[in-house]
Amino acid sequence: MLGSTHGTLTTDYRRTRAIACGERTGPVVRGRPAEAGDTDVSGRPLYAEVPDLDRLFRPESVAVIGASDAEGRPHTGITRQLLDWAGRVGARLFPVHPSRTAVFGIPCSPSVADLPEQVDVAVVLVGDPLPVIEELAEAKARFAVVFASGFAETGDEGAAAQDRLAAAVADSGMRLLGPNTNLNAFERFRDDLDGPAIALITQSGHQGRPVFALQENGIRVSHWAPTGNEADLETADFLSYFAERPEVGAVAAYLEGLKDGRAFLLAADRAARRGVPVVAVKVGRTETGARTAASHTGKLTGADAVVDAAMRQYGVIRVDGLDELQDTAALLARARPPRADGVAVYSISGGTGAHVADLATAAGLHLPELSEARQAELHQWIPEYLGVANPVDSGGHPVGDERGRRIIDAILDDPGVGVLICPVTGPFPPLSDRLVRDLVDAAEQTEKLVCVVWGSPVGTEPAYREVLLGSSRVATFRTVANCLTAVRACLAHHRFVTGYRSPFDEAPRTPSPSYRKARLLMRPGEQLSEHAAKQLLRAYGIRVPREQLVTSAAAAVRAAGTVGFPVVMKASGARIAHKTELGLVKTGLTSASQVRDAYRELTDIARYEDVELDGVLVCQMVGQGVEMVVGMSHDELFGPTVTAGIGGVLVEVLQDTAVRVPPFGEEQARDMLDELRGRPLLDGVRGRPPADLDALVEVILRVQRMALELGDELAELELNPLMVSPRGQGAVALDALAVCR
Amino acid sequence: MLGSTHGTLTTDYRRTRAIACGERTGPVVRGRPAEAGDTDVSGRPLYAEVPDLDRLFRPESVAVIGASDAEGRPHTGITRQLLDWAGRVGARLFPVHPSRTAVFGIPCSPSVADLPEQVDVAVVLVGDPLPVIEELAEAKARFAVVFASGFAETGDEGAAAQDRLAAAVADSGMRLLGPNTNLNAFERFRDDLDGPAIALITQSGHQGRPVFALQENGIRVSHWAPTGNEADLETADFLSYFAERPEVGAVAAYLEGLKDGRAFLLAADRAARRGVPVVAVKVGRTETGARTAASHTGKLTGADAVVDAAMRQYGVIRVDGLDELQDTAALLARARPPRADGVAVYSISGGTGAHVADLATAAGLHLPELSEARQAELHQWIPEYLGVANPVDSGGHPVGDERGRRIIDAILDDPGVGVLICPVTGPFPPLSDRLVRDLVDAAEQTEKLVCVVWGSPVGTEPAYREVLLGSSRVATFRTVANCLTAVRACLAHHRFVTGYRSPFDEAPRTPSPSYRKARLLMRPGEQLSEHAAKQLLRAYGIRVPREQLVTSAAAAVRAAGTVGFPVVMKASGARIAHKTELGLVKTGLTSASQVRDAYRELTDIARYEDVELDGVLVCQMVGQGVEMVVGMSHDELFGPTVTAGIGGVLVEVLQDTAVRVPPFGEEQARDMLDELRGRPLLDGVRGRPPADLDALVEVILRVQRMALELGDELAELELNPLMVSPRGQGAVALDALAVCR
Repeated sequence: MLGSTHGTLTTDYRRTRAIACGERTGPVVRGRPAEAGDTDVSGRPLYAEVPDLDRLFRPESVAVIGASDAEGRPHTGITRQLLDWAGRVGARLFPVHPSRTAVFGIPCSPSVADLPEQVDVAVVLVGDPLPVIEELAEAKARFAVVFASGFAETGDEGAAAQDRLAAAVADSGMRLLGPNTNLNAFERFRDDLDGPAIALITQSGHQGRPVFALQENGIRVSHWAPTGNEADLETADFLSYFAERPEVGAVAAYLEGLKDGRAFLLAADRAARRGVPVVAVKVGRTETGARTAASHTGKLTGADAVVDAAMRQYGVIRVDGLDELQDTAALLARARPPRADGVAVYSISGGTGAHVADLATAAGLHLPELSEARQAELHQWIPEYLGVANPVDSGGHPVGDERGRRIIDAILDDPGVGVLICPVTGPFPPLSDRLVRDLVDAAEQTEKLVCVVWGSPVGTEPAYREVLLGSSRVATFRTVANCLTAVRACLAHHRFVTGYRSPFDEAPRTPSPSYRKARLLMRPGEQLSEHAAKQLLRAYGIRVPREQLVTSAAAAVRAAGTVGFPVVMKASGARIAHKTELGLVKTGLTSASQVRDAYRELTDIARYEDVELDGVLVCQMVGQGVEMVVGMSHDELFGPTVTAGIGGVLVEVLQDTAVRVPPFGEEQARDMLDELRGRPLLDGVRGRPPADLDALVEVILRVQRMALELGDELAELELNPLMVSPRGQGAVALDALAVCR
Repeated sequence: MLGSTHGTLTTDYRRTRAIACGERTGPVVRGRPAEAGDTDVSGRPLYAEVPDLDRLFRPESVAVIGASDAEGRPHTGITRQLLDWAGRVGARLFPVHPSRTAVFGIPCSPSVADLPEQVDVAVVLVGDPLPVIEELAEAKARFAVVFASGFAETGDEGAAAQDRLAAAVADSGMRLLGPNTNLNAFERFRDDLDGPAIALITQSGHQGRPVFALQENGIRVSHWAPTGNEADLETADFLSYFAERPEVGAVAAYLEGLKDGRAFLLAADRAARRGVPVVAVKVGRTETGARTAASHTGKLTGADAVVDAAMRQYGVIRVDGLDELQDTAALLARARPPRADGVAVYSISGGTGAHVADLATAAGLHLPELSEARQAELHQWIPEYLGVANPVDSGGHPVGDERGRRIIDAILDDPGVGVLICPVTGPFPPLSDRLVRDLVDAAEQTEKLVCVVWGSPVGTEPAYREVLLGSSRVATFRTVANCLTAVRACLAHHRFVTGYRSPFDEAPRTPSPSYRKARLLMRPGEQLSEHAAKQLLRAYGIRVPREQLVTSAAAAVRAAGTVGFPVVMKASGARIAHKTELGLVKTGLTSASQVRDAYRELTDIARYEDVELDGVLVCQMVGQGVEMVVGMSHDELFGPTVTAGIGGVLVEVLQDTAVRVPPFGEEQARDMLDELRGRPLLDGVRGRPPADLDALVEVILRVQRMALELGDELAELELNPLMVSPRGQGAVALDALAVCR
């Protein structure tokens, strides 16, 4: 059954995983990987090309439309910055201005048509860029960068103007960055820094400034894509391009909205396949933030829980603060794959060690107790009365001589330790200078991750600025919290990419046989009756109770005989909500007379409450189990989504639900359940048997199939409650709500 | 009814409640404020003296026992540091050493007895301090500071040695700091900084280093108490002393454990009464942390949830990282009382504003929308297309001229705004230099709180180091998260102290009449039967169902007639757990024959399960309501505690409970309920009526009374479930567990 939703494709992460795990695998034959033009059954693309942006970031020729060298004109500063930049990278620069013959001494073309060559990049500074864009497309410029604002961020009129810009480049072969962008791509990047770099994507230039400034702390930054309004080139284009660049160790992104949810996920999928970490701030945790961001960029922000889930599905590491963005991206860009997930905390103070061990454990990191032998080794150099089980407390003195380095090496030598965290609460030069130097030296000679938290609030100390920031192997932080966030992200990302299988390769591309049956049940614009909704579920192989829809008391009694006593009886109609509150459900009916009475009572109440019925359902009574809610809904960014939650009070009071964006595989469905706070209920509490998780996961995957196949026709679907019986006994949707679009 | 559980003391919460219920009560006479020697009914002190530590921190004469000037000896460095310090503050220093005539040229006494005067402070460097301490006590030194380690932190033997030290000073009039302490109290404090200071308490010197280093960032630090093992002087002593010092604006503490929970709460109460904020890191979030900290200091760490609650009860602001400790303490030390709780976010970038507004709202801060008039005023200087409702986006340019300051003043002028947060993501000198200068100037002329987040990861920029850190009125942060944590703490602390009433003044001091009845029910070392446990509750005026204990089927039928049908029947015995799982509860019995059958069945099961019964309870069946759990337990640090949680699956699966340390008032009991995630259940969901909160709060307060009066005799008490009926209908304990000590 699952086979129908998961093809048999091969992708290269599997090879990677096999190598990483030291396994030997034979050739794996799976269905063909998705390629250009492929779509899933919902019509959404399964593949996105990587745009060739080499000449955007490293152009050989740049035209500046609206160039100026007149004192006090805003374009003058921009022209000068581009000129400097062109001089540094050796690009040819061509000013364009209708009334100047030269700008800063460089001959000026009166119009785009007069440019001496086809340029790689045309920077458009003029207030109304549309005519220029049309000329540039004609002149076969490769890229246009449009500064003007006043487009989608200002409302409907601006959005229409932006659409015209997009249309002007649509089939031209020219790609457009902006409008409402800036010169961040042409900043002064440091070229003296080695090692893997951070590539930066921002939807607000100011917000990228701190990441860019990391270069002053020795962290390499290779690109900066200020995406502006994304009329053409969007975040996803840059993300997939950066994921393919060999010098990029991690992508850092500041996002306010997304132009196209699926495009973003396809780009994130590419990064995940290639093992390139993506760290992102995404505004929209709150209504205030979402509203402000939307008005700032004119992009869709999406429901935050859905954004959060979608990012996690593709391994995108979401953080909240720009400081976390910097620290996490810097660590992930440069860290080698962790050898082990054990974290050792080493400090010259028992208090500091205890504190950091406490916070690390609370952050979910694993601090293995070092072996007796390792502890004995450490006690060669560290007094017996100090704890060295992990955290390791050197007490201070050994750090001042050759014992200091031996302690560090011994900890790093432990096979269970993949990460060493050494908090230094302040400069005490006789000890801390030697300590950080030993750490820097040791980090050069290990594949393991060495992190230092420089706890002084000053930050001008030479041990920090020169020694620690001078090392490309030690990851240096200013707060324990950011160190732990980054280390946790690093370990989690490694686990993620190791086990990653692209859901796009395995997404269903053609409708299932269920779809034909299901379509016949659709009633556009209407809510289906419970009975019809259950038929829909049945079409997709989801169990519902045995039941009959009857329209007389006598038929109810006959139906009860067929269904089997005891029975439940419920009023059925297209627009009934809150059945239980209205008294329109009768449970535990054990005799013909009870059934007859119940029929009369239900129809009386319906008349009294003025509820239109299509009949009364006589249903099999299903035994005990865990009540769940599984459903589908729509998100403005990502389209259909699938939700699962624990029913009853948990879903009602605590909103204890998990959501996923299709397509996703069985593992994600299981992960959904792990996210639920009420998860222990499924494992059985108070001596109850564990629930049939396999059946529950199967229902989630079938609802996903419905979301993919019926998403365009179905606004909302909710199985509530889905009764999940003890293991091996399946899951049954006791009630269902389905609203057609 | 209330009188019986609350003695004759008139407590305030009663008046509050009476008013809340619309009743009229006579004039309220409150007991006298607590004074030395007063205890509550549990025997715990209600008052603690503030030790006079002036001469410890500002001694006029210091003896150094074990002083040395020999090259390479560890005592030499300490002696030199004390000498420097004494020179700076003008204190007389007297070295003591049996075999030296002079140390660093200062005449040396051969023994303590030979000291030329009674010294304020004796610093004891010798390895075995006990004999010296005895001599010092004899010589009437005011304070001894003991450096030696190897005491309670090493185990039982060390703890015994520490007890001997404590005994040696106990009635001597001399106070002892340490053992296992250091020279932090005699560091080189900056005396050129103005304004309210941070006083620092640390149980590990290294952990105080970053707070002390704040002085390099312009934040005044007045004292540092490194408490060491706290054989005599403890954290609480320093806390209460600092709370009384006029120069102290806030106390910052790094804690691993507490010597005496009640002493700490009395000191925190003193700080709360005086409005002095206390910010504390307390290790022990996890088992790992608690274990490591305990082995580091030999102190008790306490259950973390109880520590957390106790701190909140007295307004102690608990933070996790040392960076949060620094930033929060620095803000709270210097901020004036907020004029309004509205926060305005102002930035030169719409993206930055949206992001910070999002995070601020998520952090629970209130961002009021500025009035139309205020927005119009701002639009005089800010282009129309930019948002100024809050966040205020200046777009950049206005910051470069006189409009910048006008914008800041206009925002600060808004009566709804108490706090201005301005994030600056990096230096862009033409704008950012002027911006921070305007902020610094504006802060000088307002009582409102002005916060800047300097987002650059570099931190060497003049605008940051010179302008921002040079201001004593702008609170400068390096991360948005820490700014929000500090601002939230500031607003919350102001609310807290404004409404603070010391629970110690209102705690019951004499046993209630209930206590006499209750004592007769105690069975030392035993678990009471359900029936006896309910009698205990009844003694304290907590409602239980009408019920009778019977030992025959015929008596059961008679009892049911008295209690009234329908009834519940339960097996009753001293050691029955999991009654429901064993089938030892029968509900909804409506006839004599059902009662007779149930009696036989219960006694059969008990025989079969080998459960000893003292009879069968025939109980009144109580209508629907919200099932709660209320109980008391014991904490190693704080003694008896009171817990409340929502029953059933929430308490079982999600541990949805809140805890408080007695004594506490009605408001805290209500706060407990607000902490519960399942709180909405009490307000009524799915159309259910709201529960009788007043009755629930009353039960919590009565359980508190039991905890105070019976804590020594009662190990554990649990009302589970406590059925809370709809408003006005009370709460009934359907079952109870009571275990005597």
